[in-house]
This record gives sequence, C-alpha cells and structure tokens, in this order.
Amino acid sequence: MNSSDHIRVESPADFHCHLRQGDMASLVTPLVPAGGVETCLVMPNTQPPITSTDMAVNYRSQLESLAPEVQFVMTLYLSPALTPEEIHKAAENGVTGVKSYPRGVTTNSDGGIESYDVYYPVFQAMQDTGMVLNLHGEVPSDEATGVTILNAEQRFLPQLDKLAHSFPNLRIVVEHATTKAAVEKVKSLPSNVGCSITPHHLELIVDDWAGQGFNYCKPVAKYWEDRAALRDVIREGHPRFFLGSDSAPHPRANKINKAPRLDEHLEAVPACACAAGLFTSAILIPLCAHLLESFGALDKLEGFVSKNGRAFYNIAPKTDKAVTLVKQDTTVPVEYTKSNGEGDSVVVPFMAGKTIKWQLL
Amino acid sequence: MNSSDHIRVESPADFHCHLRQGDMASLVTPLVPAGGVETCLVMPNTQPPITSTDMAVNYRSQLESLAPEVQFVMTLYLSPALTPEEIHKAAENGVTGVKSYPRGVTTNSDGGIESYDVYYPVFQAMQDTGMVLNLHGEVPSDEATGVTILNAEQRFLPQLDKLAHSFPNLRIVVEHATTKAAVEKVKSLPSNVGCSITPHHLELIVDDWAGQGFNYCKPVAKYWEDRAALRDVIREGHPRFFLGSDSAPHPRANKINKAPRLDEHLEAVPACACAAGLFTSAILIPLCAHLLESFGALDKLEGFVSKNGRAFYNIAPKTDKAVTLVKQDTTVPVEYTKSNGEGDSVVVPFMAGKTIKWQLL
Repeated sequence: MNSSDHIRVESPADFHCHLRQGDMASLVTPLVPAGGVETCLVMPNTQPPITSTDMAVNYRSQLESLAPEVQFVMTLYLSPALTPEEIHKAAENGVTGVKSYPRGVTTNSDGGIESYDVYYPVFQAMQDTGMVLNLHGEVPSDEATGVTILNAEQRFLPQLDKLAHSFPNLRIVVEHATTKAAVEKVKSLPSNVGCSITPHHLELIVDDWAGQGFNYCKPVAKYWEDRAALRDVIREGHPRFFLGSDSAPHPRANKINKAPRLDEHLEAVPACACAAGLFTSAILIPLCAHLLESFGALDKLEGFVSKNGRAFYNIAPKTDKAVTLVKQDTTVPVEYTKSNGEGDSVVVPFMAGKTIKWQLL
Repeated sequence: MNSSDHIRVESPADFHCHLRQGDMASLVTPLVPAGGVETCLVMPNTQPPITSTDMAVNYRSQLESLAPEVQFVMTLYLSPALTPEEIHKAAENGVTGVKSYPRGVTTNSDGGIESYDVYYPVFQAMQDTGMVLNLHGEVPSDEATGVTILNAEQRFLPQLDKLAHSFPNLRIVVEHATTKAAVEKVKSLPSNVGCSITPHHLELIVDDWAGQGFNYCKPVAKYWEDRAALRDVIREGHPRFFLGSDSAPHPRANKINKAPRLDEHLEAVPACACAAGLFTSAILIPLCAHLLESFGALDKLEGFVSKNGRAFYNIAPKTDKAVTLVKQDTTVPVEYTKSNGEGDSVVVPFMAGKTIKWQLL
C-alpha cells in the first residue's frame, strides 16, 4: 500500500544497463539488485563485443553467478558477423535484443553500423522471431552535414522512421532518448516503437556537463525544452516510455580529463577527454523516485520503472520481487569500491555526495 | 616582405587578455611578448576586480615591470562603484575601456551586471571621453527563459542592439564572439560596434570540449555554422573584427575536473567542474597564422592581429615591433612553468602537444 512516505513498486526493471567484464563486472553487477532492479537488459558493448548467441549465453552465466537473484536479459551487438541463422539461434536461447551502435559515437562502438540496409535480412529474422531492435539513435558528428553531439539524435530520426515503417512488426526501442524531437517522433510512431529514458537525462542539461566529467555521458544532455519533454512524457504516463538507465560504469580515474604530458621518450601527448557514461545502478529506483517526485510524476513511478517496459518487452518478473521505497533523505555515496589482489576498483555514482529523498526499505 | 614561408606583421595587438595577479601574472605576462604581441588590452576581472582608476594604474605598473616592452591598455570592471566622475579620471589616466560582465557567467564575474539601464550615466561619460565599452555578451542560463550556455550569446544580442542605438558615438566591442548570430548582428550595426574573436573559437566546436577540460572556456565553442561564420568574417577582411585572444590562464590542476570525495569530517563533497578558460598568449601570433592558413585567410593575418583592432581602438604601437613569422612545424609545449620558493606555477596552453605550422623568427 502506498502513502506519502511509502511506495511499493512491483519488480522494477532496467531495460538498458552496462555491466562490463572482469573486476568492474564483479563490482557493479551485485549493485543492480541493490538498486532495486529485478530484471536487467544487458548491453553487448564489451571488449570484444557480444556478437554471437554463445557469447551472450556465456556472459549471462557470468552475470548470474554475480547476482543470482537478477533476471538478466541479453542482447547481441549488431555487426556484419550477425546472420539470420544466428538470430534464430539467439531467439531459441532466450536472447531478447540486438543493439545497434552508430560507428564511433560512444564507448566501444568502433564496430558500429554506418547504414542499416545491409541488415534488413537480420531485421526480418528478428521480426519473425519476436526479437527487439535496440537503437542507439545518433549519427556521427561531421562538418559537411552540420552534425554535432547536440543535434546527432534529432538527425537520426529519419532512419528510425524508415525502419519502423519497413518492419511494422519489429519491436524497436529508441534508447536513452534525450530530445523533444525524439519523444515526439516515438509518440507519432505505431506501437511497435518504444523508448527508454535514463534518470540522468531527467535532471541534466548541457550546462551541467560543461567542464564536469562526472556529468558527461553520450548522448549528451541537451536543452531545457528537451528535459521538459522527457519529464512530460513520463508525467503523462505514456505506456511506450520506460526506464533504461544506461548505467555505464567507468573507473573513477577515467572520469577525470587528462592533462597533456611528455611520455618516456619526451614526446608530447595531448590532453585526453574523460570517459562518457554515468553510473546509476546502485541507486537506481530510489533515484527515479527522487526525480519523478521533483517534477510531479511520482504516481507514474511504477509504470516508468516496471510495468511499461515489461509490457513492451513482454517480460514478466522471474520471481515476485516487489520493492518498497521510503521517503528519507540519503546522501549518495561518493564511490563504490571492490578490492581484489592488485588494488581497488572504484566507480563514482551519478549525484555522488548529493541528497536524494527516497531510499529502499 | 612576405613569401610563402615568411610573413611580416606590424606590431601585433591582442585586444582581450587576462594576465591575473601574483605568481600567475609573473608567469604569463612575459609570455605576451613571447607570443608576438606588442599591445595588450588587459581584462579587469582580478580578485578584487579593477574597479577604479587608481587600481588600473597600479595594475598597469605591475604588468609593465613584468614585460616592459609591452604596451598595456587597461580596462575597468563595470560595477555600481563606477561613476561618471571616475570615468573622466580614468580617461585622463589613459584607461581605455570598461568591461561589462553578466553576473555569474565566467571567471570572477559574481559582481557582474544584471541590467544596463542604471549604467547609462556611466556610458554617457564614456561616450563623452572616448572610452570603449567591452561587452561580455551572454545572458545567464535559466530554465524559465530557456537560456543555456549554447544560446546565451544569441539571447544577449537585443541588449547590444539597444546599447548601440542608445549611444551611437560610444565605441562598443562584442568580446569573444562565438556565434553566427553575433557576427551578423555586429556587421549590421554602425561603425561604433566592433567585435573580438579568439583563436580557439576558430578551431573548436561543441564536440571538442565535451569531457575535455583543456578545451573548455566561456563562452563555449558552438556549432559548425558558427565556427564557419567566424572564419568567414575574417576571410572577408571585415575591418571591425579583430583579435582578442581571451587568453585566460588557470593553474593546470584547475583545468582538471575533481572527483567527489569525503572531507576531513567525512562529509561528502560533490564533484567539481574544471575552470573555464584557455591560455594562448605564449603562442598567440603563430597560432593565429596557423589557424588563418587552415581556412584560407592567411592574407588577412595582419588585418586581424594588428591593423583592424588598432584602427578601431585608435591605438598606435608604442614602438615599432614588427614580427616575422616563418613556416615551420612546431609542437606546442605541454606546459609553461615558473618556480617560486614554494613550488611551480604551471599553465597548459591551448593545443598543447599538437603541431602548429608557424613560429616567430
């Protein structure tokens, strides 16, 4: 039963999450259930990327050993290695989605796609088997086309239009939407097109990541009117918009930009950017409650973090894992760490050191 | 005489430069002539800001002791402390400009202005005495008005319009223009309005400062079409557009964003942004040659870095300090340092570790 300071949410689901490999996976995977999530759609941009059913099944086993109570839902990385036959095999093995990355726009996307046409046989097989196409919807920055990281998502939308109409029975998710244009486009498309929204894009605008590596992610946060559109579509309870955290842990040191230096041969090495991506898994459902309350949408919390996404994906909870949130100020930890023999893995969460108004019971 | 690999430029002038105080001033002021500059318009946003003639005269003496060969041209910080009487005193003491900062938009601008109307008596005195109004033309980010750091300059332009028409004989400089809108506005206004352009805004766009603190400055670099407009107006040789480097040194450590941490009381301290501002004084004229050549405007170099600004300000060289540039690849140093008793001051130049194609003879 809900009250002004208690909310029960049925089995929350995060339909977009990066869990990495090795030490980082060991650190962050157990933090998925700690953040209140029962079902977790796992992105395939590992190194090397998850390009086959066997890799996905193996990765799922690794993750299950790290967090047995979580239902991990797997995806493949769209690449020329992927065939219609492999799609059928993937579907038979419970792999749910195929993730498309445009080339070079985010972490480990160097093998991403440049044109969708060559993948139409794969998309047909996905449509036939009921798999989901997960789209990172940005086009690369380019002077000739006038694309920058600010309009990269909007410029992608014609490709979404084309795909949605070419494959009317293929479920497509526009991942981590950041713009009013994307929200409006998804709303205008038929029910085969859904859209994930991250918590951080409900909070940040462009000003917030200027000079601030710990707020820097891709797609970058945009303008006030874009943030307002994301908030509005949640507040109206639109059923095809749901939580995909895009929680993307990087080692703390990589979230700090690097000064230029001389290397051991006294050769100059220019300055380096920090890594793009924000980590939210560990605080995910309380963070969503905090944010939705801030813009008057707390009554839509269960739809956003559980029911909408589950309905779109047709994925029920493996077990009944309702969570209860209580209204109580909590300081977000400044880091999460895990020691191994050789040192600590350290990751910094979004809003580290700041206060959120809800926590898990 | 000029050839394809030698260019002579008469007494270059930088009409917008930050020289700081103390150790930082000792480090960067001698690098002004090292970068090829004879005349340097000095910004007043020290701590405390330069709000009176006496402070400006004193600051000028300090700078002259650090680089006697440079002609330092001084400005006052526009604030309620400034009176028409003080303007007359400033003009009599060779102070050239008054700098207006909008509140809170850049380094040491907390005392900046919110509305110009109260300063009309000061502007009238400036017009009467031939002083120049140096405008940082941005309005503050605000959700209600939809202003972000990306449209802050464009949204300022109506205020420029109003000032230019209210004081038709007051020389006004739009400082460090970054947008096509600002370029077009200045071109449309009468000859009392000029515009400074930095070298870094001729190179960077928004993508370049995403996650990259060493490319982060205010106003932030904008879009491809904005960079193109800045380049175009130089390439056309428009006489009211001239070099103002906005060289703005910060200690190297402050150009790196800070991770959240626990303080000595175990209280959480959230992450911090890095400082905004790029340092170019030490390489300024070669950098301008490099950049102008990259977009086919090398024949406009002397106009851009000397004649246009001198004509607008009506400031001749104190001494004939022509410089000669030679075409020769040079790696920009990864840092400039100066030791004092307690440690090193270190500042990182723009394009550190990268190659520019010209150097001073």
